[in-house]
Amino acid sequence: MRDVAVIGVGMNKWGELWDMSIRDIFTEAALKAIDDSGVDHIDAMYIGCMSSGLFVGQEHLGSLMADYLGQGNIPASRVESACCSGGLAFRSAYMDVASGMNDIVLAGGVEKMTDVGGDGATYALATAADGEYEVYNGATFPGLYALMARAHMERYGTTRKQLAEVAVKNHDNGSKNPLAQFPFKTTVDGVINAVMVADPLTLMDCSPITDGAAAVILCPADMIGKYKNHPAVKIIGSGHATDSIALHSRDDFTSLKATEIAGKKALQMAGKKLSDINLCEVHDCFTIAEIVVTESLGFFEPGQGGPAAEAGDTRIDGKIPINTSGGLKSKGHPVGATGIAQIYEVVSQLRGESGERQIKNAKVGMAQNMGGSGGSTLVHILEVI
Amino acid sequence: MRDVAVIGVGMNKWGELWDMSIRDIFTEAALKAIDDSGVDHIDAMYIGCMSSGLFVGQEHLGSLMADYLGQGNIPASRVESACCSGGLAFRSAYMDVASGMNDIVLAGGVEKMTDVGGDGATYALATAADGEYEVYNGATFPGLYALMARAHMERYGTTRKQLAEVAVKNHDNGSKNPLAQFPFKTTVDGVINAVMVADPLTLMDCSPITDGAAAVILCPADMIGKYKNHPAVKIIGSGHATDSIALHSRDDFTSLKATEIAGKKALQMAGKKLSDINLCEVHDCFTIAEIVVTESLGFFEPGQGGPAAEAGDTRIDGKIPINTSGGLKSKGHPVGATGIAQIYEVVSQLRGESGERQIKNAKVGMAQNMGGSGGSTLVHILEVI
Repeated sequence: MRDVAVIGVGMNKWGELWDMSIRDIFTEAALKAIDDSGVDHIDAMYIGCMSSGLFVGQEHLGSLMADYLGQGNIPASRVESACCSGGLAFRSAYMDVASGMNDIVLAGGVEKMTDVGGDGATYALATAADGEYEVYNGATFPGLYALMARAHMERYGTTRKQLAEVAVKNHDNGSKNPLAQFPFKTTVDGVINAVMVADPLTLMDCSPITDGAAAVILCPADMIGKYKNHPAVKIIGSGHATDSIALHSRDDFTSLKATEIAGKKALQMAGKKLSDINLCEVHDCFTIAEIVVTESLGFFEPGQGGPAAEAGDTRIDGKIPINTSGGLKSKGHPVGATGIAQIYEVVSQLRGESGERQIKNAKVGMAQNMGGSGGSTLVHILEVI
Repeated sequence: MRDVAVIGVGMNKWGELWDMSIRDIFTEAALKAIDDSGVDHIDAMYIGCMSSGLFVGQEHLGSLMADYLGQGNIPASRVESACCSGGLAFRSAYMDVASGMNDIVLAGGVEKMTDVGGDGATYALATAADGEYEVYNGATFPGLYALMARAHMERYGTTRKQLAEVAVKNHDNGSKNPLAQFPFKTTVDGVINAVMVADPLTLMDCSPITDGAAAVILCPADMIGKYKNHPAVKIIGSGHATDSIALHSRDDFTSLKATEIAGKKALQMAGKKLSDINLCEVHDCFTIAEIVVTESLGFFEPGQGGPAAEAGDTRIDGKIPINTSGGLKSKGHPVGATGIAQIYEVVSQLRGESGERQIKNAKVGMAQNMGGSGGSTLVHILEVI
């Protein structure tokens, strides 16, 4: 397999983008990535999108977007793995370049979620869970993650305040991200006293419904000399794993097996230890998710994710900065785009281009992107060269 | 890139499968492919599915199916390119093995289309066209292909009878396929006098709405010695191309540019000429599609596809047998499964296991799978070794 580098990243301002269609949203981010990289064409592209069929009545995004981007006739594919569709697009593009099939490949992600309203979005998102065994019986995603939160509190003594600390930290980070959907700060009381969604999770424990896109450009590492706009960033590890999609089929509610496996695979491939990682973007679709993910990746012992969040270990100046971008919570969560936006943040940090939220001496970064209640996970590790 | 072989194929009886859920349908075909190959595990899998979100309210098929198949925790992805989602799954699995990332990889396709009824299926299928520029203005797929038929008739003198000959031939072939949804024979009069769908296309010019699945197992060519159930079949060419998704954006209605490009790429990669191909499965979603595709692939000169069909050149005993399986027309068209079922047919023919519809001395076969009105196309070439 060939070594592969990321030579360009792009993302638009996320939010409720009423005046843009899904093709406008994707293309804006894709053109930014193309500009950022300096390439004059792309050889192939992959688009992560969870459910444009249900959200906007449009499948077949590969050829639609290639054509709209002015790159007609190239191989263009859409990949889906619920909320980690973006991470999957990144891995697909990585394998395409690594295999030698294509050289300059765009990996993008997009979702336009607001057109269908709240009920429509809840229905569409629920298709990431097990329809026949979870959704038909009334489960929603806030409900599933609330079960995980209750189990974690019961087993480890994780507190309501610790959950809130995740949201406070991520909004602090997001307030420094000009592309975030909700770049405001909040407080522990603000989170705890927000409207209840699924006990113990309030509105401020939940990531929002978002329209947005992100894109990155990959090429073989031995071609990066041609594209010197920025320090180049190499993909050194890629892990992908699944778990039973239904929560009730798992041995344990308080850890995430697919995340454990994907994280280990990525580290093994990269030849790195967890202590080599300088920052990590994780899939905080709910505050409890960030706590469980940081434990399942191994940054903290089981049960220590909550206390670590409370102690500030995951802040920008903490032991292991988590979600410097603001995470899904503050930056927004257009589901298909999230995994690519994580790569955008890791690359920006490794390049030293993250402005107010820049961490010091970032050499190696990780991104963990998760589908459903953890039924699928992609973990990637990148290193600046 | 490593050489890659197909060592197992599986498919279930297609039709209206009211007593099976989408997971049952997929898993039945996948287990047949696993049995056929003799493997005792799979390392990764790819599922082609166009729109399980709209058809059955279920996305996230990768982890759902890996778990249900008893292969929990493996990397499992769903890929989508409308009606060529199956072909895309095959190419994705091929690149995965070729890159060295995984060894034993399952490529499958599935669609359960009948649960939503006729209107629901028409809506879901229309998401393969350009929603904002075609569908909102009233276009449906029979309508778009009828435009292509009229243009082809006008330019080349293609006749109503020639279109019908495609359906007659494919139903002849399908009558010899025990897995086909509609294994009955028909006549030119039967096709022409069927109920009109979109002038000049009658019901018997259109492929049906189908529930079904197909799966194949791939491994590195240097591992096939371990799996000797059947003659091994090598993947020697893979081409993937796109075109503008909207028909009105193309230079020409009477040819298919993505098919031309993907066909040429696959031949170039395989180091073969068109005259080396012994059989070809093509995407006959409508009778006119088979005529245009056989021209765009280069089997016939522009305008000669209709006369060739009428002359019997594409029959099992003709110059170039097209759709020996019965094609989408008779075998059925569960959109995500079709591309994989084409590979199933090519492999069966190359192995000499196609029973009544077996062609003589088949060494090299081609499969052409197409999304929408030709906005994306995958072409694969396989050779028995």
